[in-house]
Amino acid sequence: MCADSVVDINVDIGEGYGRYRIGNDEEIIKHATSANVAAGFHAGDPSIMWTTVKYAKKYGVAVGVHPSFQDLRGFGRRRMKVDPADLKSDVLYQIGALAAFVKTEGLKLQHVKPHGALYVMAEEDPEYAEAIVEATTSFDPELIIITERDSELWKRAQKAGLKVVAEAFPDLNYDSQGKIIIEKVKQAWDPMLVARRAIGIVKEGTLETIDGKKINLSVKTLCVHSDAPNSADVIRTVREELIKNGIDVKPLSQIV
Amino acid sequence: MCADSVVDINVDIGEGYGRYRIGNDEEIIKHATSANVAAGFHAGDPSIMWTTVKYAKKYGVAVGVHPSFQDLRGFGRRRMKVDPADLKSDVLYQIGALAAFVKTEGLKLQHVKPHGALYVMAEEDPEYAEAIVEATTSFDPELIIITERDSELWKRAQKAGLKVVAEAFPDLNYDSQGKIIIEKVKQAWDPMLVARRAIGIVKEGTLETIDGKKINLSVKTLCVHSDAPNSADVIRTVREELIKNGIDVKPLSQIV
Amino acid sequence: MCADSVVDINVDIGEGYGRYRIGNDEEIIKHATSANVAAGFHAGDPSIMWTTVKYAKKYGVAVGVHPSFQDLRGFGRRRMKVDPADLKSDVLYQIGALAAFVKTEGLKLQHVKPHGALYVMAEEDPEYAEAIVEATTSFDPELIIITERDSELWKRAQKAGLKVVAEAFPDLNYDSQGKIIIEKVKQAWDPMLVARRAIGIVKEGTLETIDGKKINLSVKTLCVHSDAPNSADVIRTVREELIKNGIDVKPLSQIV
Amino acid sequence: MCADSVVDINVDIGEGYGRYRIGNDEEIIKHATSANVAAGFHAGDPSIMWTTVKYAKKYGVAVGVHPSFQDLRGFGRRRMKVDPADLKSDVLYQIGALAAFVKTEGLKLQHVKPHGALYVMAEEDPEYAEAIVEATTSFDPELIIITERDSELWKRAQKAGLKVVAEAFPDLNYDSQGKIIIEKVKQAWDPMLVARRAIGIVKEGTLETIDGKKINLSVKTLCVHSDAPNSADVIRTVREELIKNGIDVKPLSQIV
Repeated sequence: MCADSVVDINVDIGEGYGRYRIGNDEEIIKHATSANVAAGFHAGDPSIMWTTVKYAKKYGVAVGVHPSFQDLRGFGRRRMKVDPADLKSDVLYQIGALAAFVKTEGLKLQHVKPHGALYVMAEEDPEYAEAIVEATTSFDPELIIITERDSELWKRAQKAGLKVVAEAFPDLNYDSQGKIIIEKVKQAWDPMLVARRAIGIVKEGTLETIDGKKINLSVKTLCVHSDAPNSADVIRTVREELIKNGIDVKPLSQIV
Repeated sequence: MCADSVVDINVDIGEGYGRYRIGNDEEIIKHATSANVAAGFHAGDPSIMWTTVKYAKKYGVAVGVHPSFQDLRGFGRRRMKVDPADLKSDVLYQIGALAAFVKTEGLKLQHVKPHGALYVMAEEDPEYAEAIVEATTSFDPELIIITERDSELWKRAQKAGLKVVAEAFPDLNYDSQGKIIIEKVKQAWDPMLVARRAIGIVKEGTLETIDGKKINLSVKTLCVHSDAPNSADVIRTVREELIKNGIDVKPLSQIV
Repeated sequence: MCADSVVDINVDIGEGYGRYRIGNDEEIIKHATSANVAAGFHAGDPSIMWTTVKYAKKYGVAVGVHPSFQDLRGFGRRRMKVDPADLKSDVLYQIGALAAFVKTEGLKLQHVKPHGALYVMAEEDPEYAEAIVEATTSFDPELIIITERDSELWKRAQKAGLKVVAEAFPDLNYDSQGKIIIEKVKQAWDPMLVARRAIGIVKEGTLETIDGKKINLSVKTLCVHSDAPNSADVIRTVREELIKNGIDVKPLSQIV
Repeated sequence: MCADSVVDINVDIGEGYGRYRIGNDEEIIKHATSANVAAGFHAGDPSIMWTTVKYAKKYGVAVGVHPSFQDLRGFGRRRMKVDPADLKSDVLYQIGALAAFVKTEGLKLQHVKPHGALYVMAEEDPEYAEAIVEATTSFDPELIIITERDSELWKRAQKAGLKVVAEAFPDLNYDSQGKIIIEKVKQAWDPMLVARRAIGIVKEGTLETIDGKKINLSVKTLCVHSDAPNSADVIRTVREELIKNGIDVKPLSQIV
């Protein structure tokens, strides 16, 4: 328990584009400790990226990049068969683009967490995982990778000597195999329920699946969704309750 | 004449996209000393960007970024009324994206030269010029700006303390006001004619306009077009003839 | 006054893209009589276009196309210098794309109303106006053009023998020259105020400018904005109040 | 054999975008009898589409649409997991957009042939096949579908009562299962070799596979690639040799 009495909270953020917005970025990011910032391929135009990095700075949130397939129409949620060499280039492009705003604001890029279909495919496909690892390593081997434990990305990142941390999703159900059940449209969950699940993950290292089983989940960061109707409430509550329960909440770079 | 016995040759390069290519990048870049690399907004997808940076490394060519309006359809050649704050973000995004490949290849980004309609508008519009200057300064105040002498971009860059160098176009005609006459489709010019004009620019600091007048052109870099049917011949010839005439040809960073 | 006791209400609609939405299309379109449907260039992906056409069918709303510059990032609100031949092709492309959904739903395309910066530029620039007129005529000379009275588009459409109708904006202020004052972010106006202005426009043919003058506005259609926080309320109120005041509200095709 | 003494030649055409071009469209299209015209999703901006339709008119070539996944970067060659309802909308959008130019030129749209990864996936995936069939039927049930014999698209089109024709590729190798072997970059084949293979397909209904077996190929149209370095030569030769060998070459609409 001692070892696990600290955790990071990460959120996907800056996912508007042009005139479009998803949620209230500022209200959400301020309760997180790590921000996964969209970099223009599924969302996040340059102006929004910069604004998001400024919010991160204002609230002391560590910044990571949230690279995606090039699919604005599908919000990066559609599986694509991409040449791994192209994927590597695409990820490096997105890292660099975001890093420019991070550098300008006097911050340091903390992590890389793939988005949407790329997140899922990098868990399964060694070539995609390797492409992300190589892009990350070539830019800065100090960058931390966020994925689920024992995924292909996890393995490849470890093999390459990158720091890699596992994450859990307290606001999603898990099936009996321990896989997350993605909601087509993110539902509003009771903030206190999410908080209790979050505390359980951190303190006990366990979570109850949809069919009542307990799975083990040893993680260093909790992802809270930013696209639920009540995301700001959920993330605020999660953070407050974690702290009330003696858990230290801070950015990954201070944990790993 | 002594002071001007050195010059840089810059080319726009890496201007394909996806399956599309414009010209033979490798045959052209190898004769240049500075490369203006497209960064995805008018041309240049991430894979092409990386390949182009590798070519630059292979041939010892200094790398700069060639930021554009976001207009793939119009190849960045259509004037757009863009909010200067958005423009600043867009330029910084493109600088960062290219810088990631440059860093990965162990090189250092040398310069910024706006593309197409942005190039022209930044010469005329103080707000656009300022947006480019601010984006550049915020990323790296050592970056060199390429523009035409006395343009708005020239003035703003100087005022901000950036290094700024003037360029001339030996393969374009100049009107009696000293303005370049842009060819809708770049024509094949006689390589030796371009070379003679290039030598005249460097040695005498003058160029003959379309109506037979002489204009003064004190520049540190010559832009040779990469999209003429015979661009590789032209740039090779220009470089060879410059050298034959005792002119040192080297990257901007070794000149300014 | 008798002649003007009928009016159409038009709204810009279907302006989401991919995962993004602007406002509640169904709640707004059902109070309109004519819908200006985005066709993919500033907003409106194919799935959203089809859904929007289905809403129009469900509520008996006539469908028109809302063509734009190709500028998703800028939501079609940025002025662009486009070759008129390209613009003509772009407008015809958008007309055809929307017409496919209209045809599939057994409806008939009613009108063409340019969007955003194209709307404004087609009022001023004869070449842009002509491009829109030619694209429209070549597709179907029965299509109605919506613009402001005496604009370049108005004149060109009339000259080409197209039906053209003038519109007014009861939820925008007009300056002393009778020009609309565009709000950077559309504000919530008091629905009853907008309704009273709408009634004044239709019954008296006049509207008070921002500086208290009366301007004459003889129009056949009123545009109510769909992107105010209270757009559904405003358009419902306008329609109800127009009817309460003895004004017939119906689609343009039944008026001209 | 008598029944097979007529055949159509189809080509993918109009596959440039903005400033980019692939091959010399006019030199290639004039030897074809049916043109598969790109509609903006993998290639083919509106201006290019219109120009291509004008070429088709000039040379008496029947026009079909060549719909694709929305993937300009990947030229529509990357497999994507798309919601079938979105795919149906996307295909209908592309049909309508092209149909506008076809209508304007006084022609009639003849056929639908999916492009690239969509072509292959519609052969395998019943949902994708059905989406294409439904989009086509809803626009015009007289449209002809081009695919390979017995594909999912073939079956679904037949079931829906659409006319569907099989095609063969005389300028590609077939493996022992009778599957085409796609060349990553289309190679220049000897024009006479392609012509002989084409004649064999039409007259004998057979083609030799890469491993020397004979497969039966009963087709009504031959696809000749437009992206080989010598495409114009190949298609001209194929057409001339077919005619010299007593085979009538004409558009699908005159065959089925």
